[in-house]
Amino acid sequence: MQDFALLIIDMQKDFCDKGSPLYVNGSEKIIPNIKNLINAFKKCGAPVIFVARTHKSDGSDLEITRFPVYLQFRRIYGRGPLEEGTDGMKFVEGLEPQKGDYVVYKKRWSAFFNTELDLLLKVLSVTKLVLAGVQTPNCIRATAYDAIALNYEVIVVSDATQASNQLVHEINLKDMENIGIGIMDTKSIIENLPNLPFKDLLGKLKEYLTGS
Amino acid sequence: MQDFALLIIDMQKDFCDKGSPLYVNGSEKIIPNIKNLINAFKKCGAPVIFVARTHKSDGSDLEITRFPVYLQFRRIYGRGPLEEGTDGMKFVEGLEPQKGDYVVYKKRWSAFFNTELDLLLKVLSVTKLVLAGVQTPNCIRATAYDAIALNYEVIVVSDATQASNQLVHEINLKDMENIGIGIMDTKSIIENLPNLPFKDLLGKLKEYLTGS
Repeated sequence: MQDFALLIIDMQKDFCDKGSPLYVNGSEKIIPNIKNLINAFKKCGAPVIFVARTHKSDGSDLEITRFPVYLQFRRIYGRGPLEEGTDGMKFVEGLEPQKGDYVVYKKRWSAFFNTELDLLLKVLSVTKLVLAGVQTPNCIRATAYDAIALNYEVIVVSDATQASNQLVHEINLKDMENIGIGIMDTKSIIENLPNLPFKDLLGKLKEYLTGS
Repeated sequence: MQDFALLIIDMQKDFCDKGSPLYVNGSEKIIPNIKNLINAFKKCGAPVIFVARTHKSDGSDLEITRFPVYLQFRRIYGRGPLEEGTDGMKFVEGLEPQKGDYVVYKKRWSAFFNTELDLLLKVLSVTKLVLAGVQTPNCIRATAYDAIALNYEVIVVSDATQASNQLVHEINLKDMENIGIGIMDTKSIIENLPNLPFKDLLGKLKEYLTGS
């Protein structure tokens, strides 16, 4: 098994269906790239981890800033956004987890926030992450920052992530690049597998510390 | 005591001294605004909390992406960036914590990441935060996102925060505004104290849940 994994974040119906108050503009366009990434990662033995947001029916586990949207959502659909057990929280068509894939549920932007993701990655000996999904300024970026804070190395896939606004997408990628996150497109990722241009910073730091 | 607090993030010499590899361009310019905020918050009985980054001499507690800068820093200064016990980790002149202020040390961008900040705020019954300091895309934004994730309400002070690049500063403020973070300037904050325009979203969610 490889020491890197593919994380697919929030590719769920409530984020990808036009008409949903949570719709991320253009999110459906990245589905083919994510599919190709999944196939390529599996072919070279790298874990594929699906991360999804879910909330309780009563809304008690929402971010407080999301509470007004929750009420709006409830009025329109008669259910909460990404509510457990509803169709809206399901993975978008074509990106359903398959046997052998991992699924992590979260309540906040970061895939690491109060979830078992860090533990799962340790069990799998994964130290490097490739991020895809929606949306760039929120769940992708919050996950990328937490990943670095937890000493993972990170590459964000520029054309397998999406924001409602294209300029926001690009500027967020730039901000992430500025703190040492790799930015690559789907084609380059797949061409380079399994030798992605990670710098093994964790290994270098360890080498420096132990003098080995 | 008020239920809101002022958080001053990373206003330390290594971030504010021109010539430092970690210098945040223009960070010294926000010192007068932060001073005014501190005085105004104290006058109305709101806690003032200084957050600072420190690292061990051996560099073992660095983010891995910061490791190359650590080596560069060591070559120039003969010490690590923000190294414990050195002058570089001290608070910048004019913004030294005074008796009654709180100080929280951190190792990562977010002031909440593996620190006692959340616990301290609970003890103080603080549920709303005003953020100042450097720099906007990293420590300010990571702290703001974690604060919301932890159900705090947040206002970022537009002219008491700073990024090395002005456009990056502005676009980051916009991203934060889009997820429900308040953006205000120093003058409006001070004029409105102690009645800052928080929406009491936590209170509203609780009211909704309990039907009270």
